[in-house]
Amino acid sequence: MNAAPASTPATHAPLAIIAGAGDFPPRLAALAAQQGRPVYVAALDGAADPTTFGAIDVQVYRLGQLGRLLDALRTRSITDLVLIGSLPRPSFAALRPEASTLRYLPHFAKAFRGGDDHLLRGVVSFFEGQGFTVHGPADIAADMTAPAGALGRRAASPEQKALIARGFELLAALSPFDVGQAAILADHRVIAIEAAEGTDAMIRRVAEMVASGRLRIAKGDGVLVKAPKDGQDLRVDMPAIGPQTLRHVAEAGLAGIGLRAGRVLVGEATNLGRLADQTGLFVEGVP
Amino acid sequence: MNAAPASTPATHAPLAIIAGAGDFPPRLAALAAQQGRPVYVAALDGAADPTTFGAIDVQVYRLGQLGRLLDALRTRSITDLVLIGSLPRPSFAALRPEASTLRYLPHFAKAFRGGDDHLLRGVVSFFEGQGFTVHGPADIAADMTAPAGALGRRAASPEQKALIARGFELLAALSPFDVGQAAILADHRVIAIEAAEGTDAMIRRVAEMVASGRLRIAKGDGVLVKAPKDGQDLRVDMPAIGPQTLRHVAEAGLAGIGLRAGRVLVGEATNLGRLADQTGLFVEGVP
Repeated sequence: MNAAPASTPATHAPLAIIAGAGDFPPRLAALAAQQGRPVYVAALDGAADPTTFGAIDVQVYRLGQLGRLLDALRTRSITDLVLIGSLPRPSFAALRPEASTLRYLPHFAKAFRGGDDHLLRGVVSFFEGQGFTVHGPADIAADMTAPAGALGRRAASPEQKALIARGFELLAALSPFDVGQAAILADHRVIAIEAAEGTDAMIRRVAEMVASGRLRIAKGDGVLVKAPKDGQDLRVDMPAIGPQTLRHVAEAGLAGIGLRAGRVLVGEATNLGRLADQTGLFVEGVP
Repeated sequence: MNAAPASTPATHAPLAIIAGAGDFPPRLAALAAQQGRPVYVAALDGAADPTTFGAIDVQVYRLGQLGRLLDALRTRSITDLVLIGSLPRPSFAALRPEASTLRYLPHFAKAFRGGDDHLLRGVVSFFEGQGFTVHGPADIAADMTAPAGALGRRAASPEQKALIARGFELLAALSPFDVGQAAILADHRVIAIEAAEGTDAMIRRVAEMVASGRLRIAKGDGVLVKAPKDGQDLRVDMPAIGPQTLRHVAEAGLAGIGLRAGRVLVGEATNLGRLADQTGLFVEGVP
């Protein structure tokens, strides 16, 4: 296993983590705290679990409490922030804005039209317009991304690497359409392309085609590729895989996973490498 | 409704139709017979229904009886043939070749590696190598393809046409990867891209995301686009839609369908236009 370069600049400035669901926000909070930074977590209601952050300062916020959050950040003299974790695409009805948030709505109303990229660009530009610096999780803790090379004992064969390269080319071709963070290739062809359904649903679809006999995947064949879109803002929208991804890939009968090294979140590479070995997969970071 | 130009050259040469499943093979056989051509149908076992061809000369063949089929065509002095109808991707085990077919296997063994395009090119080159001329269904009966303009009473709005144009661009970008005959766009973004699962399964996926609340599609929004890949051999691999496609699109809550005019099989445009009106959809052929 190759460790990612720890290129994190030393700083003791306080950091706010605006946290969605999953293991990544607590992992990032712990790594930032280890660096000696004061960390303040804004746990998004209904997404983040505020109990997973240990001794770190946590406050729960609804999306409609944006004004209140800005006040809290300013009170703490925080100007650096990270947005991390998954968040269901919010509806306007679910936002229930507080009075202190109402004046920010026009900005987001515009951002809501268009693809996910457009929405996320709107979120980043909002915080930047309010004087904050938005960092990517990889800027704070490069160790959370896929390192170059195999994460476990198995490495991709030259044939599997060729399939991964083809998959990356496919994803690059989809980039201008604001779609396509993942695809599955097998049997010398493209089997599935992710759009609105998400990576897990796409893997499940392939598993079902295999189970029903509509699709045959030979042993050692079949890869999931995952990479950011060209121009994707890695500060707020980095693709990610986790233990569940590996389990689904193994269940679908694929041979492994190809990731863009340094550009896909994996949380803890060591843990994921161990799970790769247990499930018989390769997980390969490709520079 | 605009009718497609009837550009069929007059000929009385006998025509063989190698028929898979669905309504298109009997429809083509009837149209060719109306042109005064002697028609011989090779109904592929397990796919075509030999009882749907009326008074036309039909014989059932397994894929493994290719040698016998060639003999029958030569006995009848047939050199023109069309392959039409859907066929499950065959496995070698299912082919059970007769003695007269064994010598042709090496050709197909090569064609089986690679994408669908590769396999179909192999089938065409086989028949051409045996001295036959392979025609596309549209060469025999242009009326079977989508005409330019609306098939029913509803026409796509300028906004819907823009979404269709975006969809066609997406499919063109996927062409080099031998994938992507169809996609669904809504809410200013790409919702689903077809790969190995097929068009119907892709539409069902969108219907399920809508039903589960994961995806909202406003009234009047949402289009299925379908077009051939660049360089796709329209003689043997023309994309197609039928009544079932329209029903699924209506169930998914989409507004309509955009098709490349002259390059997507629709069977009977009049019938499909009537069904479009009944289901409240537009079905638009785009030149």
